[in-house]
Amino acid sequence: MGEFELIRRYFEPLSHQGSGVLLGIGDDAALLQPMAGKSLAVSTDTLIAGRHFPLQTRARDVGWKALAVNLSDLAAMAATPRWFTLALTLPEVDERWLREFCEGLGALARSAGVALVGGDTTRGPLSMTLTVLGEVAVDGALRRSGARPGDQVCVTGTLGDAALALRLIEEGAEVDAWLQGRLNCPQPRLKEAHALRHLAHCAIDVSDGLAADLGHLLAASEVGAVIRVERLPRSPALMAHQHRRPCTALMLSGGDDYELCLSLAPEHFEAARAALALMGTPLTAIGAIRAEPGLVILGPFDRPVVLPSSGFQHFR
Amino acid sequence: MGEFELIRRYFEPLSHQGSGVLLGIGDDAALLQPMAGKSLAVSTDTLIAGRHFPLQTRARDVGWKALAVNLSDLAAMAATPRWFTLALTLPEVDERWLREFCEGLGALARSAGVALVGGDTTRGPLSMTLTVLGEVAVDGALRRSGARPGDQVCVTGTLGDAALALRLIEEGAEVDAWLQGRLNCPQPRLKEAHALRHLAHCAIDVSDGLAADLGHLLAASEVGAVIRVERLPRSPALMAHQHRRPCTALMLSGGDDYELCLSLAPEHFEAARAALALMGTPLTAIGAIRAEPGLVILGPFDRPVVLPSSGFQHFR
Repeated sequence: MGEFELIRRYFEPLSHQGSGVLLGIGDDAALLQPMAGKSLAVSTDTLIAGRHFPLQTRARDVGWKALAVNLSDLAAMAATPRWFTLALTLPEVDERWLREFCEGLGALARSAGVALVGGDTTRGPLSMTLTVLGEVAVDGALRRSGARPGDQVCVTGTLGDAALALRLIEEGAEVDAWLQGRLNCPQPRLKEAHALRHLAHCAIDVSDGLAADLGHLLAASEVGAVIRVERLPRSPALMAHQHRRPCTALMLSGGDDYELCLSLAPEHFEAARAALALMGTPLTAIGAIRAEPGLVILGPFDRPVVLPSSGFQHFR
Repeated sequence: MGEFELIRRYFEPLSHQGSGVLLGIGDDAALLQPMAGKSLAVSTDTLIAGRHFPLQTRARDVGWKALAVNLSDLAAMAATPRWFTLALTLPEVDERWLREFCEGLGALARSAGVALVGGDTTRGPLSMTLTVLGEVAVDGALRRSGARPGDQVCVTGTLGDAALALRLIEEGAEVDAWLQGRLNCPQPRLKEAHALRHLAHCAIDVSDGLAADLGHLLAASEVGAVIRVERLPRSPALMAHQHRRPCTALMLSGGDDYELCLSLAPEHFEAARAALALMGTPLTAIGAIRAEPGLVILGPFDRPVVLPSSGFQHFR
């Protein structure tokens, strides 16, 4: 099967949703109609098999996750996703793999209302680069640089689940479906970000681990923060493992959480928490922004945790 | 050197040109300000070392070519490029390689007036995916579907040079600088497309070879064409090789030309040719569009040329 048949069979169906597509897949470029008066938000992320997801990850989950990690970046700006491109490198044409990949990709694309508008398929070791385009009101984006001393530091959902799942998989242990889903099918916090866009001062998505990503936010805002380990939100699944293995490091630096970390004025916390509760998403205050630079993490630690002084210098 | 130092040192300097960048590299997403009343043109292309360029290609040329092949897609729509993202996968951090890669990338970015607005660096076999964003007047884009019976089929520049250079390199032969440049540093035909945007009925960029790409154009326009081999524009460098090797196939299906193939009404050809002559770019009429589907190529052929009936089914 050649490239055009691939496109027709698997990728074109992903181009029919969403709006503002003047010309979709099939020409030299897609033509899109941005909404007047909005800013365009653009982000791109690559996933490489064996590095950003375990080699044995199901094709459906790979498709979901590839789009999810990109949409998570748009969520962190409080942008509304509209379109994406997919550059897919495959070792060979495996129709079943492709069909399942597109099912996962398509399920999230439909749920987020984004249309596939272009791409490229090449032969090589399995990897994919997606570029997502979204829109946000001018001056309406949640930047990393808006944290103010006195703000509460909050996170959505729970932390450390994906890292725990990955650890268990690497050990060959059983991983229940919920925990697997936290690793393979993260839910980009789009509607949560939309609900908090007027309450939060800044946001970042937690992809490299809370300590690293909060570190970026603090650096961009030129402030510091004190957070408390005991306040970090943990899932029942993670709590069930806590008596057997140390989980603090997983929550602080495990990565792959795709939750939002944001700051807001303390008087707005209750309204923010209530708004997210309606969606079934917890919002937890874990500490406070202060003027003095640096991230202070107050224990108790279940074992010594080595944290970088200024966020991770990762070259994934 | 970590990812952030890489970004600061090599990629941030590429983000300072161009306009409409509300927030560049360094947050979860870039924020861009599209021009009111324009359509957005988006295209993405992956280059893999050893597949889309020879392994020994200089880093500077890799940087140039990666952006050039993407800008060529925008040229084919007559869009004005504004921004791009870069997802770069590297086997290791080689500072010299990176510096030279960014020099080549930056040289073309400056000349085309595009700003780097985001990206991702990952570790793996050398490859890169760029996504380019441009703007074009609503209804002003040159689509593939606009060819009309009676149109002249034209191409910019010359054909087969890049394929000849690649063949010579693979044979270990000497390749002069001009011919190497045609392979490694293609000039996206942006200003040519801009000059012809009101004259041409349709356009495509020649990346897979004239026969394949013209085939796409004909299919999209639901027409056919007759072209003549003797009219295909050839460079002095290619002509110097013609007595030693058959070059017709290189011109018809060699690929990597990054010239524009377009169609226009015969009465506009002279104006179009004159406009491009001012830029030093030849425009050559190579045949005519007709209602009957299919691409007819009239010889003389210097050897049998096997052409696909409906464009290449490539899975590169």
